[in-house]
Parts: sequence; C-alpha cells; structure tokens
Amino acid sequence: MSPTDTPIRLPIPPVPRGFRMGAVHAGIKRNATREDVMLVVSDLPATAAGVYTTNLVFAAPVAYDRALTPGRGFRAVVLNSGNANACTGARGLDDARTMAALAGAAVGAAADEVLVLSTGIIGEFLPLAKIRAGIAAVQGRLGDDDESAVLAARGMMTTDTRPKLAGAPFTAAGTPHTVFGMAKGAAMIGPRLATMLGVVLTDAAVEPDDAQRLLREAAEVSFNCVSVDGHMSTNDTVLLLANGAAGGSTLHGEGLAAFGRALTGVCETLAREMADDGEGATHVLRIEVTGCRTRDEARQIARTIGDSPLVKTAIHGADPNWGRIVSAAGYSGVSFDPAALKLRLNGTPLFASGAPVAFDAEAVSASIRSARETLIEVDLASGPAAIRFYSSDLTAEYVHLNADYHT
Amino acid sequence: MSPTDTPIRLPIPPVPRGFRMGAVHAGIKRNATREDVMLVVSDLPATAAGVYTTNLVFAAPVAYDRALTPGRGFRAVVLNSGNANACTGARGLDDARTMAALAGAAVGAAADEVLVLSTGIIGEFLPLAKIRAGIAAVQGRLGDDDESAVLAARGMMTTDTRPKLAGAPFTAAGTPHTVFGMAKGAAMIGPRLATMLGVVLTDAAVEPDDAQRLLREAAEVSFNCVSVDGHMSTNDTVLLLANGAAGGSTLHGEGLAAFGRALTGVCETLAREMADDGEGATHVLRIEVTGCRTRDEARQIARTIGDSPLVKTAIHGADPNWGRIVSAAGYSGVSFDPAALKLRLNGTPLFASGAPVAFDAEAVSASIRSARETLIEVDLASGPAAIRFYSSDLTAEYVHLNADYHT
Repeated sequence: MSPTDTPIRLPIPPVPRGFRMGAVHAGIKRNATREDVMLVVSDLPATAAGVYTTNLVFAAPVAYDRALTPGRGFRAVVLNSGNANACTGARGLDDARTMAALAGAAVGAAADEVLVLSTGIIGEFLPLAKIRAGIAAVQGRLGDDDESAVLAARGMMTTDTRPKLAGAPFTAAGTPHTVFGMAKGAAMIGPRLATMLGVVLTDAAVEPDDAQRLLREAAEVSFNCVSVDGHMSTNDTVLLLANGAAGGSTLHGEGLAAFGRALTGVCETLAREMADDGEGATHVLRIEVTGCRTRDEARQIARTIGDSPLVKTAIHGADPNWGRIVSAAGYSGVSFDPAALKLRLNGTPLFASGAPVAFDAEAVSASIRSARETLIEVDLASGPAAIRFYSSDLTAEYVHLNADYHT
Repeated sequence: MSPTDTPIRLPIPPVPRGFRMGAVHAGIKRNATREDVMLVVSDLPATAAGVYTTNLVFAAPVAYDRALTPGRGFRAVVLNSGNANACTGARGLDDARTMAALAGAAVGAAADEVLVLSTGIIGEFLPLAKIRAGIAAVQGRLGDDDESAVLAARGMMTTDTRPKLAGAPFTAAGTPHTVFGMAKGAAMIGPRLATMLGVVLTDAAVEPDDAQRLLREAAEVSFNCVSVDGHMSTNDTVLLLANGAAGGSTLHGEGLAAFGRALTGVCETLAREMADDGEGATHVLRIEVTGCRTRDEARQIARTIGDSPLVKTAIHGADPNWGRIVSAAGYSGVSFDPAALKLRLNGTPLFASGAPVAFDAEAVSASIRSARETLIEVDLASGPAAIRFYSSDLTAEYVHLNADYHT
C-alpha cells in the first residue's frame, strides 16, 4: 500500500517549520508494506516535554525519556513499531539508549538529545540490527510535505486501521505558529494514558516547564479521557517538541495561552480518533458527565461507564439499555445521590428522579444505529465540574482480533 | 424441559432439616419452561444474615432486606426472576414489601418475617398479579427432595445455563448439620444486570451476629472473588438462613468454626460455578495471587488481571501472552516491585526478575486449549497474604448475548 492509498479521515496538517520526518519498513513488522521505523528531526535544538504511563510495569523507552524530559536541546525522536521493548530488564534499557545513539549519530546529535518511542509486542528484545538499518534508510528520506507526515504517522501504527494526524494554527505576539500532532492507539487503551504514543510538534519557542505544564493539562482532558478496553499499557507516551523555528520570541502570557489552546485541541482530536479507531469498533461513545464536584470525579464516572462491557455491547446492539449506564455510575466509587442523576441518550431523557422516564425505545435505538457516535449525557446536579470522555463499543471483532493475535 | 432434563454439574446436596422449597413459572419470563417465582420456607423461625451490593444504585429488594438483617424469626424467602425491581423508586420499595406480605400470608408469617430477592430486567415495575399467582401456585408444591431443590435453583436463573447448587455436612458438639446453598449468576456482575443472588440454608442454630460475621467472611473469599465482566449490579444479594432444626444447641466456639468452614466451602463452590457458567465462557481463569502485604491488595491485583479484556481474550485464544498479565498487575493500583514479580501460566514460569523466561509457547498454548480451567499464578514475594480469584474468558458469544439482548 502506498501512502496515498492509506485511508485518512482528517485533513493532513502542515508540518511546523524546522521539522522533517519520515518512516521506512525495516522488517520489524512482518508485513512489508508497513513502516516500522520512524524518525522526526528538528533542525534547531528543541524544548521537549513528556507525559507517560503510570503503570508500575513501564517499558524501557519510558524510563529513558522520563529521565530526560522536560528539557532543552533535543534534535530528534526515533520510534519503532512492532516491538514495545517492555519487560526486557536492564538489556532493554541499554537497547533504548543504543537506539537513541544510532539516531543521534545519523543526525549529528548526542544520544541524550534524542527521545525514543517503541510500541508492539511485549517481552521481546529489540532487533537492533533492523533498527540500525531502518535509521540509515529513513535518514535520506526525511521531508516536511504531506507524504512525509503520513508516512511518519503510519510508522507509529500497530493495529490502527489508519494514521492519526491533527493540527492547529495559532498566533502569538503577531507571529503565526503551528501545532502538529500524530498518534497511534487502537487497543490496550485504558485509564490514564493507553497503549498510545503521541508526538506533538510546534515551531513556537516554549520554556521546558511551560511545555511540560501545558502538555500535562492537555493530556488530562484528551488522552486521559479515552478508553477502548481499560487496559493500561506499559508504553504510553506523549512527547511535545517546540523548536522555535517560526522565529517569534519565547511564549509567555497570552501567547502561551493561545499555544495551550491549540495544543489541547490537537490532543483532543487525536484522542477521539483513537476511540473511533478502537479495535473492532462500530460506534464511538461520547460520554458527557456534568454537575460533579470535581473533574476527577466526573472522569471516574465517565470511565466506569465507558469501560463497562455491558454498556459497550448494548451500544453495539443499538439497545437503549439505560439500566446498564445508571448502574455503572453507581459502582464508579464516586459518592452521589442517585435520585439527582439525570441520563440522556442521544438527547432523549431516559432516567430522572430515581425512576425511569417513558421514552420511544425504537426511536432511540434507530438513532444509535444510524450514527457512528452515540452521546451519553449524565448529570449529577451537585457541582460545577464536567468532563468529556470517549470510548468505543465492544464487538465480536474485538474478541477475534485479540484472541487471535499470538505472541 | 423438565427439572430432570436440566444439566447439573454438581451432585444435588440434601436440603437441611426444616426447610422446604419450590418454584413455578408465573409468566414473568417469556419462556414458559422457565420457573420464575421461587419460595423457600423454614418450618421454624430462622436467624438470617445478608450481604449486599455496594452499588449506590441498589434495587428495592436490597433496601428491604438490608433493613431487616441480621435478625431472628424469619420464615421464608420469596424470589422472582425476570424482573430486578431496580431503579423503580418509591413504588418499587412498596412492591417489594407487598411481595413479602403475599409470601408471608401464604405461610402464616408477617411481611417482616420474609426476605425478598429479585433478578432480571432493570427499570420495570414488578408484575404483582403474576407474582401473587405464582406464590399461590408454588405454595402447594414445596418439598425437600432433590427435585424441589433443583426447581428452586432453576427459579433463580436468568442467563445461567444450569442451576448452581452446593452443600456440605458438618458436625458441632456431636450433632450432624448440613449447609445447603444455591445461587444464580453468569457473573458476580452479570449480564442483563441480573447479577448474582445466593441463598444459603443450614439446620444449625446460629446467633444473628455470628451468622452475619461468618457470611461476610465467606463472601469475602468466594462471591467477592469472582468476576465475569466487572460490572457490579444493583441487586447482588446473598442470604443465609439458620433454623436450628437439626436440634443441637446454638453454635459457639469450635462448632461455630466448623459451620464457618462448611459455609465457606459452599460459597466457594457456588462462586466458581458462576465464573464457569460466565456468559459465552470457554475457559475459567483461576488466578492465584500470593506474596502480598494484604488480602485486599492480592484481590485487587487478581481482579485487575481477571477483568482485563486483553487477558480474557488471550486465554480464549489459548495465547500465553504474559505481557498482558504482567501489565495488568502493573496498573492495578497496588504498589509493588516489578522485579520481584513471578508469573506462571498452567505451572510454567513465564516472567521473573523483571525479564522474560524462555518457555515452550506451543506447549503452554496446548495446555490452555486442552482444559476448561487456566491457572494464572502471580507471586510478589513481599508478604504473607494471598487470594484465589475466578474469572472467565471473553468470547464473541459474550458480545452476541449482550448486544442482542434488548430492553
């Protein structure tokens, strides 16, 4: 499959100034049409920030990157798909460092000026010879055009059915800037960052601490608000690189805030894409929980609903089975008054004042069947906090994909 | 299907002295061969204890029973399947009380001497006329023989494929006693939100507080250690009735301890049966977590592994994908040293000292394929606490059953 054959749902965003990227097939994935070594190079030393899995069992590249970010002076991100370099002990950490050094040598940078990402099978050692060959091959094919961006995003994919790209322009102190993001993730997508990787680039100049804070805030309402199967991976990572190539001064105040909004929008778009591309999914569940005391409580309720296999199968079957939704909220661990809970499904009220509301089940079922997105609205009427959360339905295809994916 | 056609996996245990039971089809379930009103009568006033769902959204019969237990003087348990009487507000609570009064009138007892159980669809009001007719019909058909026991257990079923019965004899102060239990649930958390119900009977005499304490302890290591889909229902209830009809004195000391062991054994057998009969299940996962600081931490790790769709699908596919198991432990929320974790699958070591152990994947896969039960052993080497937990695998059949069950 050539890059232009890849189904892309979103417009391909422009690559920010001063970045080049590309990907090649180096033989890590079995399918020779699938890129598996990806490189992003920044022509100027960039500020970098990162957010990572909170799984106690974290992969070697997570350990490597976490020790380096936030910081300055980064020149590249090197990524391989097909092998997660997770549960690989001390040798895995050595391999991540070697991978950084190989990419650094290719672009004239030190190992600690390169960040590393890996995704794929757990518990196997990195095929370093293939990665070395891949880096050598991709080095001469870097670009900042649409095709390079799509190739780079394809290089991140595992079971994703399509590359995930998003972008947003913003202006700070009169200087136009761009935020560009790409991500992967279709399963092992769970609480608090999933088997997802994300790379976000901007040509703005940002201080490391500001980059870290804004990335964390953006992840809170995007990547931390998406779930496919609730299984938190060992490799979740989102990296932000800001290289200042647009030429403006370092962002502060309103310019920094404008960047934060653009960054958040890009992350939200990528996160929704993950739920939409959830393995085997036929529906995206958009879960809006409002009227909570805190955002964390709203998210906990939304996640419990979004992770329930019974809710996910009901939506797959276009079944307005509101009892499954209400009872999921009830066991979320968040304390609330059930009599205050109001539930709407695709806009139709189904439950209020502790009792069912009469509704046209056939009409609601038809509304679920006819749209890719199903809207679940839960209001607790007990505070100002709210969250938007994305999940996917659970299908027989998810089971087939995961029962038949052998180690 | 006549009761004797029902597939029974376990021997039918003897009904303890002084209890009679039965069930009829009263038209609540659509299928006319399915019993849906069940009655258990104690000839002597019995001590009763109960454990209940911790869901904030709990059904009317849960509210009714919880207010009465633990206590003395109970004469009957009345149960309907096909309708959960959950999310039905004040009218639902009135209906539960009416159902108790109807059963009480049939056996010459007051409403508050009768406990009530309901399971089935959420959010519909009880069909009281049918329940009234069912109680009248079952009243003349109560017995303590095998057929009556099987009928009663069938009367509890929703999506269960078979009745679940277990029993154990024990002797206290020279007097032989019996514990008898029956349960329903294709999950602790069940399909159709019908969940699990359990009724345990003994002809021993037990003080209410002792009955409550021993039931809670038994539930901790049995019904609280089983999961099919992690969705906690609104109706979960286990009732224990002790009527003293065996004629011994009230149990204390060693006699009480012997009863506690028999009770725990009965509950463990019933709990394992639920996982084994989990909707669509082709495997039971027995998860043994050892070397933990506390039993709660061991259970939390076991539950996280047992609830992971990726672990469940891997076992369905006979795939020794140990990375999914190790990473689930890592996001359980329990703090531990990953380098100390040891994992064995069907007895074969797969992971230790933070790194993979070489193993014969084909042999382990064959061991999963050839047995109904898969043994997952996780040891953390950091304390004396342990737990045994049962779960089931996740299959396309589970999705079909739950996507196609319409409200």
